Amino acid sequence: MKQDDLITMSHGSGGSQSHELVEKLFLRYLGQPSAVLEDATELSLARGKVVFTTDAFVVKPLCFPGGDIGRLAVCGTVNDLAMRGAQPAALSAAFILEEGLPLDLLERVVISMAAAAREAGVRIVTGDTKVVEHGSGDGVFITTSGVGVVAEGISISAANARAGDAILLSGTIGDHGLTIMTQREGLQFESPLQSDCAPLNSLVADLLSAAPGTRVLRDPTRGGLATALNEIAQSSKLGIEIDEILVPVTPAVKATSEILGLDPCYVANEGKLIAFVPPHQAEAALAALRVHPLGTLAAQIGYATQEHPGRVALRTVLGTRRVLGMLVGEHLPRIC
Amino acid sequence: MKQDDLITMSHGSGGSQSHELVEKLFLRYLGQPSAVLEDATELSLARGKVVFTTDAFVVKPLCFPGGDIGRLAVCGTVNDLAMRGAQPAALSAAFILEEGLPLDLLERVVISMAAAAREAGVRIVTGDTKVVEHGSGDGVFITTSGVGVVAEGISISAANARAGDAILLSGTIGDHGLTIMTQREGLQFESPLQSDCAPLNSLVADLLSAAPGTRVLRDPTRGGLATALNEIAQSSKLGIEIDEILVPVTPAVKATSEILGLDPCYVANEGKLIAFVPPHQAEAALAALRVHPLGTLAAQIGYATQEHPGRVALRTVLGTRRVLGMLVGEHLPRIC
Repeated sequence: MKQDDLITMSHGSGGSQSHELVEKLFLRYLGQPSAVLEDATELSLARGKVVFTTDAFVVKPLCFPGGDIGRLAVCGTVNDLAMRGAQPAALSAAFILEEGLPLDLLERVVISMAAAAREAGVRIVTGDTKVVEHGSGDGVFITTSGVGVVAEGISISAANARAGDAILLSGTIGDHGLTIMTQREGLQFESPLQSDCAPLNSLVADLLSAAPGTRVLRDPTRGGLATALNEIAQSSKLGIEIDEILVPVTPAVKATSEILGLDPCYVANEGKLIAFVPPHQAEAALAALRVHPLGTLAAQIGYATQEHPGRVALRTVLGTRRVLGMLVGEHLPRIC
Repeated sequence: MKQDDLITMSHGSGGSQSHELVEKLFLRYLGQPSAVLEDATELSLARGKVVFTTDAFVVKPLCFPGGDIGRLAVCGTVNDLAMRGAQPAALSAAFILEEGLPLDLLERVVISMAAAAREAGVRIVTGDTKVVEHGSGDGVFITTSGVGVVAEGISISAANARAGDAILLSGTIGDHGLTIMTQREGLQFESPLQSDCAPLNSLVADLLSAAPGTRVLRDPTRGGLATALNEIAQSSKLGIEIDEILVPVTPAVKATSEILGLDPCYVANEGKLIAFVPPHQAEAALAALRVHPLGTLAAQIGYATQEHPGRVALRTVLGTRRVLGMLVGEHLPRIC
């Protein structure tokens, strides 16, 4: 590989090579000619409440079945906005590149970001690039931030759940985390596993249109379904009852998690949502999820209760009942 | 040092140790109890145009005379908003921590962010934390994003300069970049150098109030004064004339840059601004800058012209005239 094909410290200097990188790569694919030489970009926002979010992405490996760090960085931030009931208005992307990174790998990641942004109907309007010495980073880290707008009448928060709410899950769990894990460190056995990484804003729009009373939305990323449910139970000061047999899991995830001794309830997802919906809107909500391509396997997995506030109880497939705690310690590092 | 005093992979797992870190460190100092368990935060914005920006910070060393990576991350993003004429409405902060980072160093950085945010009158309302293995990062990287609001009637852009505009500089150049350089790699000679890292939003507010016709604002960070002026010349399709003798430089910067063979015009600043102001408002603008603590040494350093569009001409202290090009190649890596 020629020296010209690799990222060098000069690409982060702010001088002519930085400008060349911005023009030849970022503007070429993410296309914001008006923003070329400005550090901040003007937004035109729809009416409604404005929400704001940020996430850093350090996933390893950078590319995996079903996605790469670029797709993940766009979907992750779109989904954080969507989980407040917001449609994304604009994203930013800040890159920390390691000296020696092949330019064609960076190009692949940027193209993937552009495609994911198009899928979500949002643009990446501002960005930044820094370069660190070889050995002071790990290929590419990407931090995306997002601004979104929540339509009038929608109020979604982890603190809004009420006793009796139906708990819906939009599809199978464990796909993203197990995909990353099997790609890594000698665990690359042949498997049909694929990350579920996807932007959930259009699924949320359909859900809110069918069930405008939806009270909580959450994407079970790091820490998985179990951790997300615990956070909601604590924020809403309610108990949660989950029936394990109702939680969708693919045969590949089931088999792989048994081999690895992992509980899919603690494994990260990147294209699934949990919704707490008032009981009278549960049926409409479920129907709306199921007709969307990202929600075909949606199911009601449980309900919120006034009993055992702050705790999640699981009825296992064996019919026994146990507390489903929050993730403790390290499970799968650098999953996103 | 005990194991308990260091960042471990578990702090990035999304589980209980991640929650503990958020509660004991980020919420303690940055204080947003309402945002505890939400991934996106609602903003209340003043009326006006909304602007959005992001920057990644990888400065080395993490702490230096006049600041640290935390102060830099807050000021850098506040200043990117201010350079569009915006007041900051909210910031986000995403941390990429290296396993083994001492927790008390992280605490020092977070306290410094809180102090800088207070100085700028803005809050850090949302965040994220990831941990990478020892050797895959370098202590702490911080990406801050910001949302700001531009008051009615203000229109600032690098493309807005007109022939005849007075070019003002708010103070001395080269302080930040030379401070970082002398702190690093065997160059730690005794010197009174100190970074100028500061939030410029209140200086901008005073300037715009005195000179509402201000057309361009720019903070000369990476690439320094020379690169910033070249960007403006290109965006506005105008020539720029600068008189070197009018550019303020401290004796310490002058001496250090001579020893190192560097031109201060290419060295990064983190608390200075360039303003292009219509000639009839130049005097009022300069007076407003000079009465502000961050602009006491403000000066008019040149003017915009229809001659040599896209280029910056410098009349040197020796009376000769030369083209001041954009920074080429690597100058000072990891300066911000």
